[in-house]
Amino acid sequence: MTTKWFVGVDLGGTTIKLAFIDPYGDIVYKGEVPTNTTNGGGEITTDIAKWIDQSLEHLGQTKDQLHSIGMGAPGFINMETGYIYHAVNIGWKDFHLKDRLEMDTGLPVIVDNDANIAALGEMWRGAGDGAKNLLCVTLGTGVGGGIIANGNILHGVNGMAGEIGHITAVPEGGYQCNCGKTGCLETISSATGIARIAKEFINKYPHSLLASEYAKDGHMTAKLVISCADKKDQCALKVIEDVTYHLGFALANLANALNPEKIVIGGGVSKAGQTLLQPLERAFQKFALPRVFEGASIVTATLGNDAGVIGGAWLAKSQK
Amino acid sequence: MTTKWFVGVDLGGTTIKLAFIDPYGDIVYKGEVPTNTTNGGGEITTDIAKWIDQSLEHLGQTKDQLHSIGMGAPGFINMETGYIYHAVNIGWKDFHLKDRLEMDTGLPVIVDNDANIAALGEMWRGAGDGAKNLLCVTLGTGVGGGIIANGNILHGVNGMAGEIGHITAVPEGGYQCNCGKTGCLETISSATGIARIAKEFINKYPHSLLASEYAKDGHMTAKLVISCADKKDQCALKVIEDVTYHLGFALANLANALNPEKIVIGGGVSKAGQTLLQPLERAFQKFALPRVFEGASIVTATLGNDAGVIGGAWLAKSQK
Repeated sequence: MTTKWFVGVDLGGTTIKLAFIDPYGDIVYKGEVPTNTTNGGGEITTDIAKWIDQSLEHLGQTKDQLHSIGMGAPGFINMETGYIYHAVNIGWKDFHLKDRLEMDTGLPVIVDNDANIAALGEMWRGAGDGAKNLLCVTLGTGVGGGIIANGNILHGVNGMAGEIGHITAVPEGGYQCNCGKTGCLETISSATGIARIAKEFINKYPHSLLASEYAKDGHMTAKLVISCADKKDQCALKVIEDVTYHLGFALANLANALNPEKIVIGGGVSKAGQTLLQPLERAFQKFALPRVFEGASIVTATLGNDAGVIGGAWLAKSQK
Repeated sequence: MTTKWFVGVDLGGTTIKLAFIDPYGDIVYKGEVPTNTTNGGGEITTDIAKWIDQSLEHLGQTKDQLHSIGMGAPGFINMETGYIYHAVNIGWKDFHLKDRLEMDTGLPVIVDNDANIAALGEMWRGAGDGAKNLLCVTLGTGVGGGIIANGNILHGVNGMAGEIGHITAVPEGGYQCNCGKTGCLETISSATGIARIAKEFINKYPHSLLASEYAKDGHMTAKLVISCADKKDQCALKVIEDVTYHLGFALANLANALNPEKIVIGGGVSKAGQTLLQPLERAFQKFALPRVFEGASIVTATLGNDAGVIGGAWLAKSQK
């Protein structure tokens, strides 16, 4: 075997996903370990190094088989130095992630934001299908984003680029967002936002399927809204219409400035598929320049939980 | 003399601006010739070649003194091949600009969109002050834009990136735009848009200075609005407030995604200076993430009519 592998690492608040990935983006071997947040997150780089050593042994390989590590992490990161200013969920504050991981593993390391490496993964081997101008939006508990232009992740002047979730969707009278502003896209198009809006809409549609399902246990979720919308419940469809109107407005305005080839929608909410994509595309078309609309296709993410490790491997590979 | 010069060319509908520029961005010699739109714009590359030859002779130099040409042109351009699909004001349709200009001058040529090279000029030697993440917005008859990320102009998948003027500012019930959509930023923040909005506002403020000045000759302009705002006329100030609210909203949303260091406002309207910038900054702060707001400064363009030729020279220089 002559081609070396890259190690993709995707650090989350509860688990670390890891994989050996060949230069063509295929996963050779993967696993995960729990995120140890004790001791200010000080054990994490050692846990990664141990997984690498144990996995190599299991595969009958040596460290010579590995080229380098590409890692995605949450929080505020200096991408050039691999220094973490602050990662609340992990416990890191002023943490030399790149230097520590290089010492523990003996391999070169490159670090980026978790939303950004997911976008790189989708670009390389997922729904992006090699498109070098791509927006990736993750609709989960919050709304995350990664922007790729000319094949490179945009970071901006202090690492904040890609904060698509905090584009203002409702200029006046919007809902309070965790970021301190009001009316952010995240307050509308996240799973949390969808559930909140649904609770408002069932007052207008008390006899809807969504209202009666909600009455059963008093628990509203984006999943329930989507399942009712799939059954053509008018109330649930109105909720999706409202959510995609604002998402389409924000994405079209971004697309008018960036002219992307692909807009990749990921995260739990994207499992709604066409129920989400069809009204989203209508709203997007309404607000996008005709040539921008023609140039862009909106697709759902395809790599799921593997996007991060594959994007990490791409990051490492593209540093060569 | 050992350093070669670059030729910056900025093609407009009425004049072609040209300059010899040294590698440090200083203009050595500059001039302009009328844009000859007869014969489908077929004389333009010859006119440029003649200006270069005559200017070299005038300066007692030979063509060895020139390194290459960087040129900005209006219309739809394939930047890689320097091919113009269509430039209405010039008369070009399916025109091999790069190839023709290289044949006529014997120099290497690189071509980009006129709004983009103005942004590069401001980045290198103007208000951008070297910032490698920069938005440039030109508020003139229309609203143009150029986006620089990591020091490179963004083009997008089919050359449409930077169309900041066609970001939707008014989602519902907006004014008709030339692009076919409604409520575009261009319908509000251009000189034309400001004059239109002012005509609406004077009905509410019939005793204002703006209303009485307008009554004199029935001719409303952005310049008149700015001059009345400078005199603290309430009606004119309300117009500026309305215009900057929508501009600040659009720019903040773009900044949340791109995290620029500088936002450079150019074009005739930018001559309003602080009268425009102060309310614009307030609106920008309202809609930008705190860290994005802190990272960005909004400034007026400083190069005026030289931005294009200096940006053209940068484009040529950065190709080396």
